[in-house]
Amino acid sequence: MTAAATPVRVAVLGAGTVGTAVVRRMHGRAEVLAHRVGAPVHLAGVAVRDLTRPRDLTGVPDGLLTDDLAALADDCDVLVEVMGGIEPARSVIDRVLRDGRHVVSANKQLLARHGPALHATAADTGALLFYEAAVVAAVPVLRVVQDALAGDEITSIHGIMNGSTNFVLDLVARQGVTVDDAVRRAGELGYLEADPTEDLEGLDAAAKIVILARCAWDADVHLEDVQREGITGLTDEDFRAARGTGGVIKLIASAWRSTSAKGSTVEVAVRPVTLAADHFLALTREGNNAIIIEAESAGTLRLHGAGAGGEETASAVLGDIVAAARSVVRAR
Amino acid sequence: MTAAATPVRVAVLGAGTVGTAVVRRMHGRAEVLAHRVGAPVHLAGVAVRDLTRPRDLTGVPDGLLTDDLAALADDCDVLVEVMGGIEPARSVIDRVLRDGRHVVSANKQLLARHGPALHATAADTGALLFYEAAVVAAVPVLRVVQDALAGDEITSIHGIMNGSTNFVLDLVARQGVTVDDAVRRAGELGYLEADPTEDLEGLDAAAKIVILARCAWDADVHLEDVQREGITGLTDEDFRAARGTGGVIKLIASAWRSTSAKGSTVEVAVRPVTLAADHFLALTREGNNAIIIEAESAGTLRLHGAGAGGEETASAVLGDIVAAARSVVRAR
Repeated sequence: MTAAATPVRVAVLGAGTVGTAVVRRMHGRAEVLAHRVGAPVHLAGVAVRDLTRPRDLTGVPDGLLTDDLAALADDCDVLVEVMGGIEPARSVIDRVLRDGRHVVSANKQLLARHGPALHATAADTGALLFYEAAVVAAVPVLRVVQDALAGDEITSIHGIMNGSTNFVLDLVARQGVTVDDAVRRAGELGYLEADPTEDLEGLDAAAKIVILARCAWDADVHLEDVQREGITGLTDEDFRAARGTGGVIKLIASAWRSTSAKGSTVEVAVRPVTLAADHFLALTREGNNAIIIEAESAGTLRLHGAGAGGEETASAVLGDIVAAARSVVRAR
Repeated sequence: MTAAATPVRVAVLGAGTVGTAVVRRMHGRAEVLAHRVGAPVHLAGVAVRDLTRPRDLTGVPDGLLTDDLAALADDCDVLVEVMGGIEPARSVIDRVLRDGRHVVSANKQLLARHGPALHATAADTGALLFYEAAVVAAVPVLRVVQDALAGDEITSIHGIMNGSTNFVLDLVARQGVTVDDAVRRAGELGYLEADPTEDLEGLDAAAKIVILARCAWDADVHLEDVQREGITGLTDEDFRAARGTGGVIKLIASAWRSTSAKGSTVEVAVRPVTLAADHFLALTREGNNAIIIEAESAGTLRLHGAGAGGEETASAVLGDIVAAARSVVRAR
């Protein structure tokens, strides 16, 4: 890297927990990021919906904060979308990809719903779309599925992909409290959203397993295809029964290839499963996530780590920023 | 991908357990590899030292087998080196990198000894050097360290990186046999090389942790820097003592950043460690490998899988072949 290397300009949409962590680490790790990318990584700006809300944006000069998302998106080499929601995130990302520039997103619902369309746009222009952070935060499962196993044939993916429900189930299993009490406790500790439906009904895990199934098999799989059952229907009797057999109930997201005379299809499901107490997934405590990938040649791979958290999600976003920025530098 | 896309020509040096598995899977997965790469992946040839030795090279036309390594290396887009040993592997790889073409290697001793020099050559010409298979086979630890955590700061890496010694230690711990008996048994079952010194004395694990330390911190670390102690010095008394405290002895390879007033240095070690019985690494059975990576933002990541085996190593080699081939296609 020469001192004169042209900086890669990164725009960040969203300044919530993840966005502020990303910006803080970009600032704090500027030197090491420049070394790894081969050029300085500059913050082009941070776009938020409401400029008046107080935020902890250490290292961000006042002039870099804006509420003009489109203008900022037009003025960067790499767009980082950590604002969540479908719109305006989808439109802005689409616009940047159409322009042939790279995008990093942590937005699982957007990717689950509009991933194929965004990928099609990216393929047309040669833009790259990264979203490791959208699936179990810091656990690098997308890179394993897309890159490490790119020469292998994945046969199944099973995992605990929602930390909030795992926290609830862990509390019930280990402290013998009721599901309702555990949900209340998880809410008090900040493990659940104000509206916890997305976690408890398995919608969050469904979005993640759909994204993974598409990456693993290039499968035409949608949210509607997920055989989904959350944890709100579980009764104290279910937990007693599991305990009686030495088992532990976990909310498991699964995807697998099913081959019949008619050909090969991909199945996706999210449902409570009773596992033996010494099973790798049963040993996953509190808000952690864990995934088991089976592949024809690699055999069984197990991954375990933090599936949520601003700082942990920022780690995945920053990894994608480096990948996108390296691609910008290579193309110069 | 158009039907007319120019094939990417891959040359394989070595037709042992790994080489034959790579060639067999390239043949069997031709269609899916072509789809993932964006062009057909063709076998340019397989080079072996002794043409008369019988081999199981399913799908390899007779004319593609050669003992002229240099000629084959000159006639490919991607060179795959799975022959092992330092020479002629080093010279052939160096020659291909100097020519600006990409290399995939599974050769840990070569990378541990000559990795920095080969990387310097590659950097000069823009060639890429991949070696996921050199470090714990199918467990994708290099991709996690180099790509997933590229925007993070790794603080330590600890793991079981040699399946043979883990098999021996697991046998002692679980069946109460002596170390000598366990070594004999592991040899009979094919878990040890004819000369098991490299495994038992921690030289194999040392090569892997040196490669990882360089990738994690761009550190100037060499085999000679490893604080190394194998398992041959362990006595039955050591195992009794460990059992007495409810512990399990494992051979742990470690690398960590150590910061003092003089600055930051990287330490590397391979040594037997007594772990609590419910520790993630203590739970690693038989010939499996497991790694714990600590990073500033990501927190604790755990990886577990097969650290050896022809088919499992081939999975990692094939993942690297796809990455190298994609790069060839992109550059066209």
